[in-house]
Amino acid sequence: MNAPANSFTSAVFPLQTIDVPGGTETVLPGGRHLFPLLPAAFAGVRRIGVIGWGPQGRAQALNLRDSLAGTGIRVTVGLRPGSASAPDARACGFTEDDGTLGDWLDVTAAADLVILLIADAALAACHQQIFAALRPGAAIGLSHGFLLGHLRATGGAFPHGHDVIAVCPKGMGDSVRRLYEQGGHVGGAGINASFAVHADHSGRATDLALGWSVALGSPYTFRTTLAGEYHSDIAGERAILLGAVHGLVEALYGHYRLAGDDPATAYERSCETLTGPIRQTISRSGLTAVRDQLGDRLGPGGRDTFDRAYTAAYGPARELVAEIYDEVADGTELRSVILAERRLADRPMSRISGSPMWAAGRTVRDRRGARVVDIEPFTAGLFVATMMAQVDEFAERGHPWSEIVNESVIEAVDSLLPYMHARDVAYMVDNCSRTARLGARRWGPRFQAAYEQIAFPAAGSPPDGALVAAFTGHPVHQALAAAAKLRPSVDISVPAPQGPRAE
Amino acid sequence: MNAPANSFTSAVFPLQTIDVPGGTETVLPGGRHLFPLLPAAFAGVRRIGVIGWGPQGRAQALNLRDSLAGTGIRVTVGLRPGSASAPDARACGFTEDDGTLGDWLDVTAAADLVILLIADAALAACHQQIFAALRPGAAIGLSHGFLLGHLRATGGAFPHGHDVIAVCPKGMGDSVRRLYEQGGHVGGAGINASFAVHADHSGRATDLALGWSVALGSPYTFRTTLAGEYHSDIAGERAILLGAVHGLVEALYGHYRLAGDDPATAYERSCETLTGPIRQTISRSGLTAVRDQLGDRLGPGGRDTFDRAYTAAYGPARELVAEIYDEVADGTELRSVILAERRLADRPMSRISGSPMWAAGRTVRDRRGARVVDIEPFTAGLFVATMMAQVDEFAERGHPWSEIVNESVIEAVDSLLPYMHARDVAYMVDNCSRTARLGARRWGPRFQAAYEQIAFPAAGSPPDGALVAAFTGHPVHQALAAAAKLRPSVDISVPAPQGPRAE
Repeated sequence: MNAPANSFTSAVFPLQTIDVPGGTETVLPGGRHLFPLLPAAFAGVRRIGVIGWGPQGRAQALNLRDSLAGTGIRVTVGLRPGSASAPDARACGFTEDDGTLGDWLDVTAAADLVILLIADAALAACHQQIFAALRPGAAIGLSHGFLLGHLRATGGAFPHGHDVIAVCPKGMGDSVRRLYEQGGHVGGAGINASFAVHADHSGRATDLALGWSVALGSPYTFRTTLAGEYHSDIAGERAILLGAVHGLVEALYGHYRLAGDDPATAYERSCETLTGPIRQTISRSGLTAVRDQLGDRLGPGGRDTFDRAYTAAYGPARELVAEIYDEVADGTELRSVILAERRLADRPMSRISGSPMWAAGRTVRDRRGARVVDIEPFTAGLFVATMMAQVDEFAERGHPWSEIVNESVIEAVDSLLPYMHARDVAYMVDNCSRTARLGARRWGPRFQAAYEQIAFPAAGSPPDGALVAAFTGHPVHQALAAAAKLRPSVDISVPAPQGPRAE
Repeated sequence: MNAPANSFTSAVFPLQTIDVPGGTETVLPGGRHLFPLLPAAFAGVRRIGVIGWGPQGRAQALNLRDSLAGTGIRVTVGLRPGSASAPDARACGFTEDDGTLGDWLDVTAAADLVILLIADAALAACHQQIFAALRPGAAIGLSHGFLLGHLRATGGAFPHGHDVIAVCPKGMGDSVRRLYEQGGHVGGAGINASFAVHADHSGRATDLALGWSVALGSPYTFRTTLAGEYHSDIAGERAILLGAVHGLVEALYGHYRLAGDDPATAYERSCETLTGPIRQTISRSGLTAVRDQLGDRLGPGGRDTFDRAYTAAYGPARELVAEIYDEVADGTELRSVILAERRLADRPMSRISGSPMWAAGRTVRDRRGARVVDIEPFTAGLFVATMMAQVDEFAERGHPWSEIVNESVIEAVDSLLPYMHARDVAYMVDNCSRTARLGARRWGPRFQAAYEQIAFPAAGSPPDGALVAAFTGHPVHQALAAAAKLRPSVDISVPAPQGPRAE
């Protein structure tokens, strides 16, 4: 699959080597103390064009402008004619008058680095126009690998004669901006990012990408490939980041209701325990801490229940993650997105937030603070098993450990689950990016069925000691601890209700 | 999409024109009185090679041999080396000694018509070997369009210089044999079939296909295209024939359990009512009869409940059928089957028959006869809406009406649902052909989620009178009535437990 991309060099930035299972990886610890090096990293770039003003476009344009202030490098924003985003861009200080706001193709034609942050469907429809507008030698910047997947699925290619680089923040756009602002007074605040060099026409593509990442405020930047980023990003959001979470809580809510719980209690034991204490425990203390803090006793409430649930869920979850990965890597998944977009031109996507559990969610959120919600061991075992299934599948497919822990654990517990805790899971599925939304709708029900039809019946059997031992002694805990040393120093706060993007 | 293939001519058989919505279709009514015409239809064919001895291979080889007895045309069976099917083939009178049983490639090389009835995965893996072994001018016979889909998905093609025809019985192989045997003493017994002429090298391909269908005992043969057959066959088994049924009964079982039903009652109101009285009513009296026999009163138990369920389910079901159809026609669905087959070389497919409702099913089957199970209006409304969603989607895609009613209604109520009634739905999903099994696992959970998350919450709203009127006045009822005049004159009995194939 993807060759591990564990080591790289920079002519500009001081790098660091971290220990990961089976070896080391080179990473770039970020920080504002590196901003004086940005002109060297951006050598030859006088104008940056950020195309699009969604959450990522907004956050990146603002962070880049702030970080590059005083360098003479101008950050400009390009929008399509009639874009509804123009007023907000102007309010943020990008204006036609000073030449920092303009038509997307004009901005593209004038920029030395063109960062494409329009929606996936727009990128699929319009990339050829953008490519045709590029000035000779301008670098193409991406923030995830979707376009590569689309080009492969449709027989297209990037144009020759241009650097093609990616910097991919492992969090939603709103967090990229908010944590950057916090980084002004709290050292280390920011969102981690991966970077990839897909084409190095200039010979300076790595430093350009690293400079972009430092300017975004990434506390920690690791290397991947554009294909690796695409595979892990698209597969991850269909699995543990979004699709599996939705399937899991729907299955568990029905399970606890049938066991006799009232709606609010069933919601607490399925959704609230997951987005609350389970998430917090993993974020603060790692994966095994969830199991460790459960009692030793057999039966409900203890570690035995966790182990049974883990044993029952790991196999079917792994089977599904492998299926998702295959379909993403093959291009099948993106074909389905393209077909769905065509259908959705005629009919809107129906919403999935009408199921009864989300009404119970409002009750539970309203009484927060008045009750302590504990870790539910059955829910925890199923969730952690699914997370480990993704970790193992990504490792088997050759992803770097930094990417594995970011796409399987850190982004889940530090970015998406906190958002779901604030709003709810169905709201998030109904409001995230269309590629993620379509993926969650395709795969969430598959996870739900796998839990209901395979894992729940199997959870009556004793735990598999070897499987549990493989979990407790798993090398991912080392990689996660190494990444944790470089993680943001602040909790990622949840933005005011707006459509997030799982990326 | 597919051009309607409504009219054709035959130099051998007397054809009939039936009225369908918007026009007429040419069909061939079958029967043993036509057997004297078989030598003319098979002109130039001295040996028929049936490759494979699954349920279809066995049934077709036996029917062809019986129908062609005395004509001098020899029916031979080809098996792969070491095939476990050889003893049964010998027990049925196909032996190496008289040259009617042999190696699959030898049998292929000696035959003038080679009928490929090995499993989809084997066909995908081995079709090139078979093509290479064909004698010049030999006709290629198929019983569904899978191979065309596979060739399109992989960039392959049928070899030139050969007729490529299909005869596709609209029932499982065991039924094709059993109803043929009944046809010896009950006029009109048999399984309907579609036929397609994909390549007519000889100029006699239509009559060859019609002769094959008459010899199989089809009471009624209608024309389609190989692509149309493939699309409706693969999409249909993912929707109303198998996947949607599984999703529906899983969703309804949980729904009725949560409403307070004990397991056996919930099973009766979800699965038993569907495979029992709803199925029988549609089979005997058509789709509107299900609604007509419900009481006029509002509230539970009456037509109002049916109408609410119908209104709530039609939209999300149509959305899903359209998605399935797109993915089948695009090749995406078959790519996923190919990828799954690769994964399944390493790990077995987990079974889905462990969910609690199937234990309740045993209880319900054991007490059959002691209780009358009525039509449950909520279940009926959801099911009929899903069936109509498929009818409408297939009509919009341009399929002939004979194909629409066979693939959406007749095969469901006369072939697959009776089988599910005898065994249960999960057993059927776990034991049907791998292409169907994989498809049901992909799409069943999507239907389940659509019912649970979209249709059930919406069923609290009043019915949509226009949508219900579109159902009661729908032209499909005319097409179904026309097809019903030509349908088998006997009920299709359910075979002893064996792996069936949804086709």
